[in-house]
Parts: sequence; C-alpha cells; structure tokens
Amino acid sequence: MTSTAAVSLSPRLDERLPHRFARSAATAEGAHLRTEDVARWLDGRRAAHRFQVDRIPLADLDGWSFQEGTGNLVHRSGRFFTVEGLRVTTGSSPYRQWHQPIIRQPEIGILGIVVKEFDGVLHLLMQAKMEPGNRNLLQLSPTVQATRSNYTKAHRGADVRYLEYFTDRSRGRVLADVLQSEHGSWFYRKSNRNMIVEAVGDVPPHEDFCWLTLAQVAELLRRDNVVNMDARTVLACAPAAGAGAGALHSDTELLSWFTSERARHDVEAERIPLDRIPGWERGEWSIDHEAGRYFSVVAVSVRAGSREVTGWTQPLFEPRGLGVTAFLTRRIGGVPHLLAHARIEGGFADTVELGPTVQYTPSNHTHLPVRPPFLDAVLDAGPSRIRYEVLHSEEGGRFLNAESRYLFVEADETQAPLQAPPGYLWATPHQLSGLVRHNHYLNVQARTLLSCLTSGAVRL
Amino acid sequence: MTSTAAVSLSPRLDERLPHRFARSAATAEGAHLRTEDVARWLDGRRAAHRFQVDRIPLADLDGWSFQEGTGNLVHRSGRFFTVEGLRVTTGSSPYRQWHQPIIRQPEIGILGIVVKEFDGVLHLLMQAKMEPGNRNLLQLSPTVQATRSNYTKAHRGADVRYLEYFTDRSRGRVLADVLQSEHGSWFYRKSNRNMIVEAVGDVPPHEDFCWLTLAQVAELLRRDNVVNMDARTVLACAPAAGAGAGALHSDTELLSWFTSERARHDVEAERIPLDRIPGWERGEWSIDHEAGRYFSVVAVSVRAGSREVTGWTQPLFEPRGLGVTAFLTRRIGGVPHLLAHARIEGGFADTVELGPTVQYTPSNHTHLPVRPPFLDAVLDAGPSRIRYEVLHSEEGGRFLNAESRYLFVEADETQAPLQAPPGYLWATPHQLSGLVRHNHYLNVQARTLLSCLTSGAVRL
Repeated sequence: MTSTAAVSLSPRLDERLPHRFARSAATAEGAHLRTEDVARWLDGRRAAHRFQVDRIPLADLDGWSFQEGTGNLVHRSGRFFTVEGLRVTTGSSPYRQWHQPIIRQPEIGILGIVVKEFDGVLHLLMQAKMEPGNRNLLQLSPTVQATRSNYTKAHRGADVRYLEYFTDRSRGRVLADVLQSEHGSWFYRKSNRNMIVEAVGDVPPHEDFCWLTLAQVAELLRRDNVVNMDARTVLACAPAAGAGAGALHSDTELLSWFTSERARHDVEAERIPLDRIPGWERGEWSIDHEAGRYFSVVAVSVRAGSREVTGWTQPLFEPRGLGVTAFLTRRIGGVPHLLAHARIEGGFADTVELGPTVQYTPSNHTHLPVRPPFLDAVLDAGPSRIRYEVLHSEEGGRFLNAESRYLFVEADETQAPLQAPPGYLWATPHQLSGLVRHNHYLNVQARTLLSCLTSGAVRL
Repeated sequence: MTSTAAVSLSPRLDERLPHRFARSAATAEGAHLRTEDVARWLDGRRAAHRFQVDRIPLADLDGWSFQEGTGNLVHRSGRFFTVEGLRVTTGSSPYRQWHQPIIRQPEIGILGIVVKEFDGVLHLLMQAKMEPGNRNLLQLSPTVQATRSNYTKAHRGADVRYLEYFTDRSRGRVLADVLQSEHGSWFYRKSNRNMIVEAVGDVPPHEDFCWLTLAQVAELLRRDNVVNMDARTVLACAPAAGAGAGALHSDTELLSWFTSERARHDVEAERIPLDRIPGWERGEWSIDHEAGRYFSVVAVSVRAGSREVTGWTQPLFEPRGLGVTAFLTRRIGGVPHLLAHARIEGGFADTVELGPTVQYTPSNHTHLPVRPPFLDAVLDAGPSRIRYEVLHSEEGGRFLNAESRYLFVEADETQAPLQAPPGYLWATPHQLSGLVRHNHYLNVQARTLLSCLTSGAVRL
C-alpha cells in the first residue's frame, strides 16, 4: 500500500477556473486582434476564400441519390448523413402525431475551443469558417468543428487543423467535455462533444484563426450573425463563476421537476422511409410540406477554397420563416431567473430537454386556433423590456438561411407568473450552467442564450 | 419589482441533508422494529400471504400470446410489457453483432422510499413485498414500486399504497428524484424514477411496512437476498456526506473520460421480431439460446394474497448461472477508489453506462478463448481481500432466480494498475454519488454496490 499512498490526488473541482473565465470576460481587449478589427479580419478571410453557393435541382446532387425502396436521400459512401422520414407520436396536443423529414447522422463529432493564457488572461482560439448555409457564408467558429467523417477522412480532404488538442491528452488540459444534443426538430438523436481544452505550450498560428478574450467574443455575440452556432454551444459549457445566491427552486426541486417532465411524456419517434411520410411532396428543386410550412429539403453546390475539399454538392434543410427564441426573465428575490420550458422535440434522444421560454417560428402557427404560450409576451415587448435581441444562424453545414431572433425579455407577474404553468419552471442561470456540465439537459437554443450569459454579452 | 423582491429564495443545496442521512446510517437501532426482529417479521409476512409460483408451458399463459407476424410475446391489453427481438451491432469485439430476446416496457415507473424522522433520526419506510421471481419470494422493497400500468389500473387491482407521497407534492418534500436505467442486457431502454420523499405529517401504518434506519437497512444488505433490487437502486440515490478529499482524477477528467467512452462506441440496437432472432429456439416451456447460454424466457403462474390482484400468469427471464458483480477497490493517496467500467449493454438508452469492474456470468464465457478482464482478480481473491460478498437478486417481477454475488475486492497494482486499461477508470465513491444525481451514468449493478457504500453496509 505504500506505493499508492504516495500518489498525489487532484482536487475534485478546480476552484480557480471559473474566476479565470470571469477575468477573460472582464478583459475588453485581448493581446492580439482588437475587437474593432474583427469585422475587417472576417471580411478579409471571406475575400481570401473564393466561395460560392448555388441552388441546384435535387437530381444534380453529385454522389447523393434517393435510395431504392425507401426514398431516403443518401451519399454513395454510406457516410456523412442521410435524410430519412420520422413519425413522432406523443400523448399530448396540439400535435399527437406528425411526420417529417429528418437528418440522421449517428456519429458523434467534436466542437472544440482551444484556450490559452496571454498576459495572464485566457484567450479563445476562434476560426473564420465558411459554411454554405449561412446567409453571410463566413462566421466565427470554434477552433475545431469536426464530424467523425471529417477526421477519419471520409471525403479524402485535408487534416482538420488543431484537432490533435482534442484527441491527444498530452497537448492540453480538458476544461469541459460533454455530449450535447443538436436541433431535435431537424436531427434524429444527434449529439456532439462540446469541448474546451487549455493548450500546453505554444500553439502555431494560422491566418484563419485568431485569439480573442471572452469579453471580445461577448461583444461579437451582440452583433447579428457573427458567432456561429457551434461556437455558441461550446461557450455555453464554460464554467460560470460563483454558485449563485439561492434560487426560487432548490437544485433538487429543479431536477425533480425535470425528471417528472421526462416521465410524464410518452414520445415515440420511429424512423420510416422518406417516401412514406404523408403531407410532404418531392419536387424538382425541393421536398416541401404541402402547406408550405416548417422547412424544405433543398440542394446546393458549393465552390470554396478554405474547406477541406474544394467543391461539393449537398442537401440542406431550409426553414420557412424567421424563428423567435427567447427567455423571459425576472429578478426573483433579487436574483435573475429564466423561465425554462420542458420541450418535446421528435429527434431528442430522451423525450424532453429544457428549452427557452419561447422557441417558435410564428408563421408556422398562424393556422392554429391557439397562440403558443408566452409568444405574445415576447413579440409585444417594448424596448424597455428587451435586454438582448440579436439574429443568430443555426448550423450552416446542414441548414440554409436558418435564422432566429434570440432575445432576453423582462417579464412581470401578469406576463409570466412565479407559479409557472405545467411544463415551465423558473431557474437561475447558475442552475442551468450546472446542468450543462451533463448530457442532454439543455437544448441547443437554450445553450445559445446561456452562452450570452456565460460570456457576459448579456448581464441580467 | 417590489412584489418579487420579497419572495424568499431556497438555498440551491440543502447542506444538512447528507448529515441527516449519515446520522441515520450511524443509528444501529431504530425507533420501531429491532434489526434482530426483521427476519422474523419478514417470515411472518411471508406466511401471512399465500403465495405460490409454478412454472407453466408458454401456451398456458393467460392473456399473453405470440403475436401474429412477429412472434413477439404480448399481453392482450397491449400493456405491461412485451418480449421482442433485438439485434445489437457494435464496432468492437468480442461481439460485433448479436441477437437476443429483450423486454420492452416503455413506460416509466416509480421506485420510491418515504422517509421520516423519529427521535430526530431519519427512518425509511420499507415494504415486505412478494415478487414471483425471487427464490425466497419475499424481500424488503421500497415503499412504492409501481409501473405506470399499476397506478393507472391496467390490471384493475387495488390502489398502490403510499403512492400519493410521490405524486402529490403537498404530501412530502422530494430529497432525490432521478431517472435510472434498469438491466440493459434484458430491458430495452427501460428507466424508472428513483425517488426519496420526506413525508409531511403522520404516515398511516400498515402491517406490510416497517420503519428502519439506514444503519438497519445496511445490516440487512449484509445478508443474502433480503434487500431487493428496487430498494438498492433507490438507496444508491441517497445523498452522500462530504465531498471527499480529492481523487485520482478530477470531476472534469472523469466526465471527459465518460464522454469519450460514449463517443467512441458505435452501438446500434434495433428492435426486430422475436421469431426472427437467429440462435434462439422456442420450445414448449421456454425460449432458449441454442447453446444453453445467457437466459431463457419462461412462464409462471402466480397465486398470491398480498399483490394488487390475487392471481396471474406472466413471462419471466431466467438467467443461466450465477452472476459475479464486483468493484475492485484501492486506497489511492489514502482515499478509497473504485475501478469503474464503461459498459456497452444493448438495451441502454445511450450506448454506455458505468458498471462495476466485473459484471459477468462466468459460465457464459467458458467457450471464449479470452477471459473477461479482471474476472480472475475477483474469483481468485482470498478472504483477506474481500471487503463484502453477498448474494442479491435482480428484479423479481421480471426475472426468475436471477442472482449475483456482489463483491468489493481489494486489489493492488499488479491486479489493477492505477493507469487503468481503456474502458476503465478509478473514481471515488463520492464522485459516483455525484453522478447518480443525474440520469443514466451508473448502471443498476453499479448502483447496487453504491447502495452498500451510501448506507454504510461496507466501509472501505
């Protein structure tokens, strides 16, 4: 026993870490690029890379085809992703059962940010990355954004730069590493690893990457369509300073409510052939819902210089209408709280995850007799109640022009009572930060909004 | 804003709670039944309830039949559970693909223990409950053990006693409430709510129930086949006192390792018709593996007085051979550690959960060229290395004579190195107690062993 008695143990928690992130969030200018120069740098990267995206007929997809017998849209390599059909059955209204196309990509990718101290302040290595589905094409991305196909070379392209920091434990110290879901309305049980790694030693520079403090990223999160979804979800996983001064509901009450929400919903999501989903029609250029709602499956050709390969075609999901995604907030007992919603999405691995108070595309609901809960409290809010309002894009590698208005909107007792209706509960940002250390509590939209809080882009 | 400023907040954590459980774990005799009288009380309950279990041919199952077209074993009500086929495909040896029968029961049940202070010490309300699959029929169970079919009256039986403490928030304060998996080798994505609720006000007594301190339950956990699986998994969710004095790996390292284990395994589990699983044969009395391994599907008739209904027939899974389920333990830097194993089981909702170091039925492995890792380190251990060795039964409502030897076995560097092989990691009991507050980290066998630590049945 003498040999093991000499082993030195680690503290279970690194108490300094949240303060180091807080310091980065308080450092308005970094050691490298000035915030006012970031837009110019991004424009420069955009100009440096030829990049053109054109809509093409579905039949012009190269390497993609509609599979015999199922009509599923598949790649000839059997990799990347497929577009299949999904039938979702729930016990609850307004939708007891529906059918839809869904993206299936069972492999788990890595979304990772390398961090490193300069002048005693943590900086994040951010990438200027082209994605075909972004309206402005190029946005600020994590250091690494790799599907497993990427890093096992399914498309025979170049290596993914800086990937070794996430796969080789000797290159850095892991600060966060958790599986998080992606859009449950569009992806079937898709998860990615969200990682933050502190690099050991020098990190070689590259012209498509820059070091920014958390405060600089926060400033960019206040601008439309600059920080991409992958960066936002990783930022949400950064440790939050302090435990918070109490909450309307204790952590155990919050967990118990979440458990009861998962338990009370029966959701059955079955994969079915794409050509057997009622209510959807395949045309020359797209697959569409018969009433023109929700989204379409479209095809694009891409010409680029900075991607791992220089040209390709692919399907994308193109949502109809602009989404509205918002947390209602209240100070309760002096402490900011957010109204979380236990949401069913057909593609979730486990029934329910916590989303923002409001997450709707209003144009999809105009045909329904009942307005979605709390939507009007967001849409009718005057400027004095709006703490944050920015347009962000969803994953530009899978979604075309998928934009939402992300908001924090202050509410009062008449708009959002403390005794929340079934399916809703008030929680503090610290409580949500605690949950996001674990798998599949918060959906990707809630994580985008949480990233605005962890980075300091919004202070409630 | 004045109205909400006056709201009083809850502390996020109840700091006193772990100490109250620790006090109960230190109180050898309770305010009610003496420990030495528990066995007699259980015998009395066993005698009071006529209860007989007989094997019957599959064709004699009443209300159950093999469904046309699939061969699945189903109940005519469409409820309770079904026995279906499962095809599991993994990327890794020794089993790249296998087929098996599996129990499908998508509804989420409640396993709950009511606790209450007597003389300032928490007592647990435990039930003497008959289950047809237990060799000794009656074991000590949680206060409530209810499938949703139970409490929505699918079998038109009596109400489930004390259920209201888990469904009506005014009757008690929730101390733990989490979804946990059940046997991933036998159940398809089965979860139950594991709940501990502190009762408000008097709790009416009943002859099949008794109040015991945690120390009394711990004493019973040192005896063979007394505390049932449902009680053990709920006990594992009790809060552990103290944060522990550090660990070989920080919490972030532990979570990162777990995430990488989930990410590196591709597991596809597909439900298929029961009559289309190769290697299994349906006879008059059972469905068996062709080599006589793993388990059989059998049928029993049950006559009882104390169940919600007085007689029924049902299928049960009957494992072949006695399981061996063990944590290897080491004191590292003076702190006890357990060697956790990231296990694939076909029925897990999410690929991998943490199991004990060893979880095998040795007789199922005699035909393989390679011995399962660490099995010999457990089987060859002399008495001086064995900290705990007790026979426990798995769920007697679904499994017949499913027994395992549960052990804690002390190891050294030659048997179990600090630098554990891939798929294994050293963690402290406190770290595992932290994980068990959340869904689907620890499998049911690991939770049984953890319950021995949280209750104080074993002190490492």
